[in-house]
Amino acid sequence: MPHAEALPLAAPNLTAILFGLSGCLVDFGARTRQQGVHCADQAEMTPGALDSLLSLQRQQIPCAWLDELSPALSQSLATALPEWIRPSQHLATIRPWPAPDACWQALMALNVERLDGCVLVSGEPRLLQAGLNAGLWTIGLASCGSLCGMAPKDWHALSQKERERLRGKATVQLFGLGVHSVIDHLGELDTCLADISLRRCKGEKP
Amino acid sequence: MPHAEALPLAAPNLTAILFGLSGCLVDFGARTRQQGVHCADQAEMTPGALDSLLSLQRQQIPCAWLDELSPALSQSLATALPEWIRPSQHLATIRPWPAPDACWQALMALNVERLDGCVLVSGEPRLLQAGLNAGLWTIGLASCGSLCGMAPKDWHALSQKERERLRGKATVQLFGLGVHSVIDHLGELDTCLADISLRRCKGEKP
Repeated sequence: MPHAEALPLAAPNLTAILFGLSGCLVDFGARTRQQGVHCADQAEMTPGALDSLLSLQRQQIPCAWLDELSPALSQSLATALPEWIRPSQHLATIRPWPAPDACWQALMALNVERLDGCVLVSGEPRLLQAGLNAGLWTIGLASCGSLCGMAPKDWHALSQKERERLRGKATVQLFGLGVHSVIDHLGELDTCLADISLRRCKGEKP
Repeated sequence: MPHAEALPLAAPNLTAILFGLSGCLVDFGARTRQQGVHCADQAEMTPGALDSLLSLQRQQIPCAWLDELSPALSQSLATALPEWIRPSQHLATIRPWPAPDACWQALMALNVERLDGCVLVSGEPRLLQAGLNAGLWTIGLASCGSLCGMAPKDWHALSQKERERLRGKATVQLFGLGVHSVIDHLGELDTCLADISLRRCKGEKP
């Protein structure tokens, strides 16, 4: 039986980036999910989020956010985000994370032409698992997601040693899921996406 | 010296199989699409189709068929198929092939938990391209799809040399798309799926 050769080819630009909302773009520590409500400060963008989005906008890479909070709660958390980043319509009919459905729906809503080069960024293990199940490249966020789960002021009040311990533990948990990269926060996203592009150039697949 | 088992391996770890309808499970030569109507003989299952489905049913691998013909035409072509194989609901709202949407919708309708191990089998280049775009393993059918496009009696009336020429040309076209394997017809599917399982065992990704 004839085979296609799996030769690494030059990777084109990334196709699309999906972001978690709570514990990723906004709501450092992902406290909204635990509490079911949020204070105004939880709608603040996380460190590096705005710069990351501006960089992706300059590169014309389509982006969307998705979350499983109620639509009202999600929308109120998303008020600080640039308008061009698309919310993914949360359909009550689709299966919850870690099923791949929400990720595929978000990609279809962005009119992406192919799965190849699509990336999910999140600090929420269930969403990252959904991304893995959907066949996406996945980038876990160690300190600002639910695994550390602390408000910024509490996080910064910790000793550096204690922060390192928690960050290290979250990193191990995220790699344990099978995610492709782990970064601390979105300030490191540009470098991480460049690394994924390089891995794609070398023929690696998610 | 130990040697490899000669029989094709079962494919226990495949997640789901999507099939084209016209030019794959039924309608050898995919003449329905060209003609917009079909004769009763076009609803006949293609060589190997029934045995393939029975084998997959025994292995409890979920299967669905999908097509872009009108629902009425698809349903009338599908009457000979076993009832357990699911039609994929063709939503007017989704983008047509080669967008990945129809493949992802079909996988969601089958409640698959992950993209990994999902396979598309078709003789239609546009559907195969949709499968590639969706991140599926793809198996092209050379002789019974639209690239050869001949009714069974016309196909069998050709000289063997002429059949080989047409089959070879279709095979090259299908590999040119980037499909992972090409077989002549569904009678070779079991062996081909075993081969894909082996390639997955070795770490190859679609």
